[in-house]
Amino acid sequence: MIAKKMEAYVTGSSLIRAMFEESKKMALRFGAENVFDFSLGNPFFPPPPEVKAAIEKWLAQPDQVYVHGYMNNSGYPEVREKIATSLNRRFQTSFTQDNLVMTVGAAGGLNTILKVLVNPGEEIVAFAPYFGEYNNYAANVDAQMVIVPPAPPSFEPNLDAFEGLLTARTKAVIINSPNNPTGVVYGEDTLGKLADILRAKQREFGIDIYLISDEPYRELVYTGKKVPFVTNYYENAIVGYSYSKSLTCAGERIGYLAVPAATSDSERIVSAANVMTRTLGFVNAPSLMQLVIAECVDVNVDISNYRKNRDTLFHGLADIGYKCVEPEGAFYLFVESPLADDLAFCNKAKEFQLAIVPGRVFGCEGYFRLAYCTSHDKIVCSLPMFQALWDSCL
Amino acid sequence: MIAKKMEAYVTGSSLIRAMFEESKKMALRFGAENVFDFSLGNPFFPPPPEVKAAIEKWLAQPDQVYVHGYMNNSGYPEVREKIATSLNRRFQTSFTQDNLVMTVGAAGGLNTILKVLVNPGEEIVAFAPYFGEYNNYAANVDAQMVIVPPAPPSFEPNLDAFEGLLTARTKAVIINSPNNPTGVVYGEDTLGKLADILRAKQREFGIDIYLISDEPYRELVYTGKKVPFVTNYYENAIVGYSYSKSLTCAGERIGYLAVPAATSDSERIVSAANVMTRTLGFVNAPSLMQLVIAECVDVNVDISNYRKNRDTLFHGLADIGYKCVEPEGAFYLFVESPLADDLAFCNKAKEFQLAIVPGRVFGCEGYFRLAYCTSHDKIVCSLPMFQALWDSCL
Repeated sequence: MIAKKMEAYVTGSSLIRAMFEESKKMALRFGAENVFDFSLGNPFFPPPPEVKAAIEKWLAQPDQVYVHGYMNNSGYPEVREKIATSLNRRFQTSFTQDNLVMTVGAAGGLNTILKVLVNPGEEIVAFAPYFGEYNNYAANVDAQMVIVPPAPPSFEPNLDAFEGLLTARTKAVIINSPNNPTGVVYGEDTLGKLADILRAKQREFGIDIYLISDEPYRELVYTGKKVPFVTNYYENAIVGYSYSKSLTCAGERIGYLAVPAATSDSERIVSAANVMTRTLGFVNAPSLMQLVIAECVDVNVDISNYRKNRDTLFHGLADIGYKCVEPEGAFYLFVESPLADDLAFCNKAKEFQLAIVPGRVFGCEGYFRLAYCTSHDKIVCSLPMFQALWDSCL
Repeated sequence: MIAKKMEAYVTGSSLIRAMFEESKKMALRFGAENVFDFSLGNPFFPPPPEVKAAIEKWLAQPDQVYVHGYMNNSGYPEVREKIATSLNRRFQTSFTQDNLVMTVGAAGGLNTILKVLVNPGEEIVAFAPYFGEYNNYAANVDAQMVIVPPAPPSFEPNLDAFEGLLTARTKAVIINSPNNPTGVVYGEDTLGKLADILRAKQREFGIDIYLISDEPYRELVYTGKKVPFVTNYYENAIVGYSYSKSLTCAGERIGYLAVPAATSDSERIVSAANVMTRTLGFVNAPSLMQLVIAECVDVNVDISNYRKNRDTLFHGLADIGYKCVEPEGAFYLFVESPLADDLAFCNKAKEFQLAIVPGRVFGCEGYFRLAYCTSHDKIVCSLPMFQALWDSCL
């Protein structure tokens, strides 16, 4: 018998992954070329060439024990130092290697930092629409998720509602900008106001409220808009970064936590994160990929492919009649569902070989999400299917 | 403020890791050549050449999206199929890819399977001396650790005591053979008796008791003794494997869970493990290393280096007067402490630049552990230090 808690996990397992699996089944039935999979944020484009060059460089090193063996739980000191230097140059921060913990992707980092910070029964706040997996991360630490209602059509964070939802039990607030699923980038003004609210509530309740910034999409911005670096706006901010998208290596599971020295209890947070990385079973971020990251710390994926996809899909859908705010970053479109029931709409989409994800997965019914990290051809060929789907709903 | 539970973790953090960190400090002070680090199971020897060849092969593939991108949470189906085929040939099992879940090392696998199986308050049984990290894994699922007392000097599992400790709340039993820290290999007879006891208790209490076999050292056996494959002896057995030692790539974090079809609730266990791999934040085992494993599924590290180390260290220590059962496998010696207080002894050892780990870390006071995965030279040069340490205790 599996554990009781598991039943809910298994039956309520990610609709995103379910749709991804379904699209693979559709591909077997209709041929891969006739299936349009917008379900998973799994980039179609290869990593930048620097990734391969860095792997080859490290394979040529005589000391392969160093390359494939254990290091500190927090990661190679040299790797952390290079990342700190890059962050400091780009964002005028003052990190050292001691402020960084290498993690098994951003998901590993978020689980580690939540385990470090959150007591059972405390509250974790997120803004809808949000990455549904946060619910599971909260369940892992027996915390209560508190969801700030969405603010369509702009999908900027609903700060008025947010303020009213903070309590003496609030331990962490998770933000994600550029946002999955909306593509919204939180500007300086938004972040400043959010920080002011948090500071006031910290004083009011006499507690620390940690702002955790989940940043896998930091480098994917199409409008030239600056993505403010949260630790410059709020003291108790912690960044959870992933190279999954910036270096197109989502399967490799590599990222980091950055905990500024100014953060309340900073040293103990880092010490505890080192222990938790080990005791949660990650032990350390994969060794070779850590060394590769250090070589590629300022390398970015070519975002022109994503921009082209975004433009074609956004305008193509708008021409049909779909309603959506043009995304500033990430590689998702969050579109109003022509049917009020977004799940019914996504099931209908399957008839047109379209694998798409209902908004309810992100705590926002009446919408659907498209991941446009696929090939441009796929996007062009999908538009007639989206037209037919639209017509079928009239 | 970090979470309350963390305080205990941070202060009681692994003495093994603490000793490892300390030996690095000693190396700075005395010179690396004058420090003898027997603390951590971090092999000194490089991976077999096939690992490098396999990485190069996959880097040369045109489809680098496949190599570095997301796959099923349970891992690439092709990789799981190759592992299943190898297991079936070597151990007369009948695994398919559907019985395997690729994991972030054995530690990731153990955390995943415990989360899948164990309800809060249920009991997890382990045999002392045991890998102390199990305590943390149990704490992660709010389970109770139940420790079977050690049976020196043979350190075979104490089956009489074991039988008396099983209760209606027992959910899992963890075994580890070849054993860390004793090097004992559980034979067919032992495993058969253990299985009989478990079956009887399952009937008595009307429950399923899962036997979880933690197997990072399976391939490291020096005596020709067969390491029985647990799923052939007991139905509700699950294997947690790691390639850390067999392919000398502990930093890469790659292993698997094997859940036989005959195991009670097998399909739901695998489904839940797939979900938990994701929701615990691992998402999937590192992609490139999965593909590398598939190429190296029958490759093993050259154990002659370890055997030479074992022989030199075991006989060298015995000549001095230290008492220890000759290890059959793994790369550890578990030695009687000349001082009753094993922690005091290990602290004294530091005066002789010896980094060693007290037995209490493994639930067995009065002993100390040596990891002999270091260079043979180190072992030879350490013997006069062990002699001086011995003399200082007289």
